[in-house]
Amino acid sequence: MPKTFQVLTKDKNSSARLGLIHTPHGNIETPAFAPVGSQGTIKALPHSIVKELGAQLILVNAYHLYLRPGIKIIKKMGGIHSFISWDKPILSDSGGFQIYSLSPLVKTKKDGVQFSSHLDGTQIFVTPKDIIDTQLTLGTDIMMPLDYFVSYPYKKQELADAVDLTSKWAGLSREHFLNQNTSQQLWGITQGSIEWELREKSIQKLTEINFDGYALGGLGIGEPKTQFFDTVKKSTSILPQDKPRYLMGIGYVEDIIKAVELGVDFFDCVLPTRNARNGTLFTRQGKLVIKNKKYEKDPRPLDEQCLCYTCQNFSRSYLRHLYERNEISSSILNTIHNLYFYLDIFKKIRQAIQTNSLKRLKERIITKEEF
Amino acid sequence: MPKTFQVLTKDKNSSARLGLIHTPHGNIETPAFAPVGSQGTIKALPHSIVKELGAQLILVNAYHLYLRPGIKIIKKMGGIHSFISWDKPILSDSGGFQIYSLSPLVKTKKDGVQFSSHLDGTQIFVTPKDIIDTQLTLGTDIMMPLDYFVSYPYKKQELADAVDLTSKWAGLSREHFLNQNTSQQLWGITQGSIEWELREKSIQKLTEINFDGYALGGLGIGEPKTQFFDTVKKSTSILPQDKPRYLMGIGYVEDIIKAVELGVDFFDCVLPTRNARNGTLFTRQGKLVIKNKKYEKDPRPLDEQCLCYTCQNFSRSYLRHLYERNEISSSILNTIHNLYFYLDIFKKIRQAIQTNSLKRLKERIITKEEF
Repeated sequence: MPKTFQVLTKDKNSSARLGLIHTPHGNIETPAFAPVGSQGTIKALPHSIVKELGAQLILVNAYHLYLRPGIKIIKKMGGIHSFISWDKPILSDSGGFQIYSLSPLVKTKKDGVQFSSHLDGTQIFVTPKDIIDTQLTLGTDIMMPLDYFVSYPYKKQELADAVDLTSKWAGLSREHFLNQNTSQQLWGITQGSIEWELREKSIQKLTEINFDGYALGGLGIGEPKTQFFDTVKKSTSILPQDKPRYLMGIGYVEDIIKAVELGVDFFDCVLPTRNARNGTLFTRQGKLVIKNKKYEKDPRPLDEQCLCYTCQNFSRSYLRHLYERNEISSSILNTIHNLYFYLDIFKKIRQAIQTNSLKRLKERIITKEEF
Repeated sequence: MPKTFQVLTKDKNSSARLGLIHTPHGNIETPAFAPVGSQGTIKALPHSIVKELGAQLILVNAYHLYLRPGIKIIKKMGGIHSFISWDKPILSDSGGFQIYSLSPLVKTKKDGVQFSSHLDGTQIFVTPKDIIDTQLTLGTDIMMPLDYFVSYPYKKQELADAVDLTSKWAGLSREHFLNQNTSQQLWGITQGSIEWELREKSIQKLTEINFDGYALGGLGIGEPKTQFFDTVKKSTSILPQDKPRYLMGIGYVEDIIKAVELGVDFFDCVLPTRNARNGTLFTRQGKLVIKNKKYEKDPRPLDEQCLCYTCQNFSRSYLRHLYERNEISSSILNTIHNLYFYLDIFKKIRQAIQTNSLKRLKERIITKEEF
């Protein structure tokens, strides 16, 4: 089997790594950020702009696509790359998180999960094998197995059960996956929140099964920051060195760069795109809420150091006007800025690892200095 | 005073003309189409894409911008080009149509019009001079004066009064305009619906005043098609040859090309952009309503002959999915297609006038043949 991941350089001052994920649709330089396009589109942007912004891949959601338009249609259209006309790598999340967070009446059974569609209440039962089959049909480059997600704060027994069931399902998923002739990858999702004995057990079980990459699931949903980072640190210290580590759903740039220092390679988050639509912009000086009246006559760009199309062309005054008028172009221009901001920081993170200057970059980001 | 309009070529088989409007922000080749960006943005598109699609100018609305963000803010930001960061020509509609169609409690007085803002009910009184001042401050390349708009069907006496008052206001507007030192243009708006003696009178009065261009206002709002075209034909036959003719708010491509044959040079309409957002696409084969279930698995582009980004990349199946999911990218991709479709037809119209093949182009468009 060809190598799916290479570590190219290790940072001298931290556990950060520069790497390369090989997929059927091209390579992904890590640390990498996957913009979220659950429905097969990054919200408020055509693919052409997403590519111009430097996105190496996008994330789609198997749960959403399974419900609508349905896997049959996507199969008929030649798979997800063909259906959405995106020729770079695609990662599909299994939708475990969505099943547990969006669906009413979720019932976890030994063999899978019973839930009612959040759209029309249809009763659906899916097994780990079904979720793999869905993603095999989608043809995504990186697939994630069905996991059992427990919200925070958790009941310890439920969390322990979730870790066990997630491990069991991971094994069934991997077994089914290995019976296929595919160049897709399957990564594992570890659970256990911030309970180290559970997280450790989850990691041990999953590494025994042997996946192409490992995700830390169920984090960043309200745990105290210290315990969150402690869990990330301990996890990366026992995860295999030669596989990518994915911290799911995180998040703020300050947290991302700390996690990179702890050895995380891969991130996804709705934050830059969702906040953009809500008029919250990320800048070197911190968050900027564009609807504030003080921007009414402000001729400056969102971020004076930013080289994105929005900052190179438009004032806060105009962007406030578009936001207040509820113009679609407000969402477009804001998303361009926020996504550029994130993807540009990832470029800078990769450069900094190469030049052993990651610590300095982190300090500049955290203290809101120029970078 | 420098020439603001040149007729370059006349079609041998019709009254169509190829021309050039000179403005402080560049030339506009006619027949021209102005995409509507009432609030200073084409809905669902960043300016970069609007330019790529071949837009030579955009239209903004003085009424909307006067109400929000207000002229003071735009003045402080350096005028409309600077505020919205659009460096090509801009035409501002006076907002007469909007005052009469959006505002409750409109009262036309001799000196101007009293109305309440459609946003918060504020009582506002504007004179023809105010409307010119607003547009002088905006700094638009082509300004339109305040007119008295009568809806269809009309009462003949009201229409006659509207023609008289519109002429009177036109004179006051022009007089005030000529006292300014500006390279902006002021075009006149004729009224009179399809009552020829009134329309003729309106045109005579306005040409006596002498504007940089002449608009046919109050048409395309429900009049029988025969009388509509008859009015356009008679109007262009008595309008000065050396000034551009603007048929406001029209419309369907089939009507546009007929009006071009009758000697109209300039058009604007919300149709391509508004219909795009509603999921109605213009194609060589006619209208396509993307939400129809029959497109669920249709791998074809919207229009198989179309060279736009949307048609070159995306299937009807994917576009239906985006529309059904209420994704912003549905509006973006649909607007790209519809606006490309319109602007491309205008390019083809200009080429056809050059090569004396306009009649053939018109027939192909009307019979939905390849063009």
